Amino acid sequence: MKKLLTTICALVPLIGTVKAQEFTPTQIQQVKQVTELALDSDLSWQLLESLTSEVGPRLPGSENDKKAVEWAKQQFEQLGFDKVWLEPATFPNWRRYRESGTIITPSKQPLHLTALGNSIGTPKEGLTAPVVMFETLDELIAAPKGSLENKIAFVNYRMNRHIDGNGYGPAVRARNTGAIEAAKKGAIAYMMRSVSTSHHRFAHTGNSRYKDGVSKIPNTAIANPDADQIERLLNAGHAVSVNINLQTEDLGEGTSYNVIAEITGSDAPQQYVLIGGHLDSWDLGTGALDDGAGVALTMAAATHIKQIARPKRSIRVVLFAAEELGLWGAKAYFKQHADKLDNIVAAAESDFGADVVYGFESSVSANSLPVVRAIAEQLAPLDIKYVRANNAHGGPDLIPLRQATNAPIFALHQDGTDYFDYHHTADDTLDKVDPDKLKQNTAAYAVFAMMAANAKTTLTGKNP
Amino acid sequence: MKKLLTTICALVPLIGTVKAQEFTPTQIQQVKQVTELALDSDLSWQLLESLTSEVGPRLPGSENDKKAVEWAKQQFEQLGFDKVWLEPATFPNWRRYRESGTIITPSKQPLHLTALGNSIGTPKEGLTAPVVMFETLDELIAAPKGSLENKIAFVNYRMNRHIDGNGYGPAVRARNTGAIEAAKKGAIAYMMRSVSTSHHRFAHTGNSRYKDGVSKIPNTAIANPDADQIERLLNAGHAVSVNINLQTEDLGEGTSYNVIAEITGSDAPQQYVLIGGHLDSWDLGTGALDDGAGVALTMAAATHIKQIARPKRSIRVVLFAAEELGLWGAKAYFKQHADKLDNIVAAAESDFGADVVYGFESSVSANSLPVVRAIAEQLAPLDIKYVRANNAHGGPDLIPLRQATNAPIFALHQDGTDYFDYHHTADDTLDKVDPDKLKQNTAAYAVFAMMAANAKTTLTGKNP
Repeated sequence: MKKLLTTICALVPLIGTVKAQEFTPTQIQQVKQVTELALDSDLSWQLLESLTSEVGPRLPGSENDKKAVEWAKQQFEQLGFDKVWLEPATFPNWRRYRESGTIITPSKQPLHLTALGNSIGTPKEGLTAPVVMFETLDELIAAPKGSLENKIAFVNYRMNRHIDGNGYGPAVRARNTGAIEAAKKGAIAYMMRSVSTSHHRFAHTGNSRYKDGVSKIPNTAIANPDADQIERLLNAGHAVSVNINLQTEDLGEGTSYNVIAEITGSDAPQQYVLIGGHLDSWDLGTGALDDGAGVALTMAAATHIKQIARPKRSIRVVLFAAEELGLWGAKAYFKQHADKLDNIVAAAESDFGADVVYGFESSVSANSLPVVRAIAEQLAPLDIKYVRANNAHGGPDLIPLRQATNAPIFALHQDGTDYFDYHHTADDTLDKVDPDKLKQNTAAYAVFAMMAANAKTTLTGKNP
Repeated sequence: MKKLLTTICALVPLIGTVKAQEFTPTQIQQVKQVTELALDSDLSWQLLESLTSEVGPRLPGSENDKKAVEWAKQQFEQLGFDKVWLEPATFPNWRRYRESGTIITPSKQPLHLTALGNSIGTPKEGLTAPVVMFETLDELIAAPKGSLENKIAFVNYRMNRHIDGNGYGPAVRARNTGAIEAAKKGAIAYMMRSVSTSHHRFAHTGNSRYKDGVSKIPNTAIANPDADQIERLLNAGHAVSVNINLQTEDLGEGTSYNVIAEITGSDAPQQYVLIGGHLDSWDLGTGALDDGAGVALTMAAATHIKQIARPKRSIRVVLFAAEELGLWGAKAYFKQHADKLDNIVAAAESDFGADVVYGFESSVSANSLPVVRAIAEQLAPLDIKYVRANNAHGGPDLIPLRQATNAPIFALHQDGTDYFDYHHTADDTLDKVDPDKLKQNTAAYAVFAMMAANAKTTLTGKNP
């Protein structure tokens, strides 16, 4: 025991030395200051409140999307960022005008539904047909060819609830390609249980696609209680027919803008920490959790860093355009900056609501790990655990970055247990965000970004 | 201490004697049997599932309302009730066809709203006007005459959550007469925060009225998150205008039917215990909590009594028509039976969802209280407390009975803490009912009705 203590005591100064090499005592003091400032400030809340109320829903290409771009630019300027600029991104411009559904037989009743993004519309009076139910997409894929002629295919797959949202991937398969598989079997429309853990009567929208050579059919999700209802009626032996009425439009190519702002670094301004979220949202809710929160908290985190001290490297906040329709802003950004991606010393996107950050994870080179551990140590007082797997993904808008380069990627894992109760529904509104949790998120991003920008060692990706 | 014990011991046989006078040991045994049967059976769930799925929403006068009447009659017959019959009731026949809302300025976004029952419609393109907000109905009443010309009056009163639903009364004032008060000040439409404790995006409908000599204006409730949104925008200094589009119709007088069924008593068949609920529902949800549960659990409770033993007095289940539009079925029933109301030896309506029954309360004469206490004793194993106030109201459809006569009224108090999260919204669906709690409710009604029917003493009202 005595020997162990001696060993520990011998190691302590060494650990101190490593830390001292990466961060000066003043820098560590600044981390504590930015934590306090972020936990005390309601800047992120004010930004989120303003964006979700004064702009509201922000479907790419819509009037509100333009307002959101203008809003973000003005806010960055008023917050005193050193540089603020826009970069264009194009995307398939799609609109939802009206939508409604009705169970026709065995008894007429409302059917709460929503068009999936990119869905074609129905005739003006809608489209009525019998429903054929499948428990999974694979069951639909296994259906005999032609077996769904003049039918509506209904995939009734239930999403699982989990803190890290791992139920989403398996469930979203049926959204991405369900309409294609249904059309292959002759169905005239596709309908799915919402990719959602909610038991409230909200249908969950989200992107979907068609395939060349396969007919495009109307593509819709129904609220979970409505999926239960149809399941009960079918299980009771009733023939169930429904009317689906979707009025949508494909407007061709649209243009929006990534809104980018920078706190310029004092020592290596060309190197930067990239944080951000996506500025667009679905049209049903006001995009508070998805992704107003990510926008607001990263804007506020960078502002708080600037309020404490100019960082050595730059902090760049990127508010991506048109994420919901297929990461179009992210694709444009990483293409536009393709020859300078090495300048990114750390990247993290917040796009998973604003429940507490419970874990911090990197995806970096071995010689970057001491910096990561030092950051984790400063995040611990915020009740954030260090996830040592070193396998962070870092948010959907970083997918093109991961695909293009070996960048140092970070994740501040938010508790997603309830996220899919609201995600992509009309119920994603400001009241679903807890102001105190939003502050904790802001503090976490401020600590991470400040330290990644100030570390002596320049962070590098996992496989250099 | 010894003296106290002696006194208690001396009293025990006396209490035993009182009970023995009211109920035979066999009857007490039957109460235990009906409790077990009700807790074990899923009859009430099956009835509720069938009504809310196979019939669905049941707006008075609608096609589904007719189906519900037919459904109830058939179910009663299949369940083996001794008599089943219909009695007509007329009511003002009103329909909601379509409705939508939009915040127009400062930023276009959806406004989740619903027409209040009896509301006139708007022009086809809706009606757009600036919003003037009041915190309470009284503030609106205090507004200067003419001050709301060409405006939409908005009462933003927040309902309180409480186990006994006591927040409903104060909140519902703004629904009953808000449109009248708004029109008096010149408003062209009335809009209110939903009479609801929900933070989800569901607007709460409910009945409302107009007044002769005051213009009828469109009358609507908005979902609570939407009320928050408008409040924030107004508080931030924005002029807020909204478009309200209600397509409704007054169809004149409609007719529906109270569905009545009886288990005929062996000794005094003309005397009866009245239990029931209302068969109609609003059109938005499927009326699971309001009041499918009350219908299903009282039908099942009477059935279970019959399965154990024929009661001395009759058990009559009354499924009232058109409650939501103004207690029209109840008014018709108590008018139709006006000369025989003395035959009612106990009356209780279940119309407050299906969360656990936590309290049992009477409104009876002093000499009926020993029976009440004996019933309370048999309800205690179901975790139901005896509420000694002897001031039960007994459900909305018993209001005409209370007004007409001094009847023995009972309440089986359901926990209403969450009831107004769902009540009168699209979200009042089967999944909001807990099957085990529904069984507890069914058992409570079975015990109460069986004992009230079998007691030696005929129960009488409070002030004979």
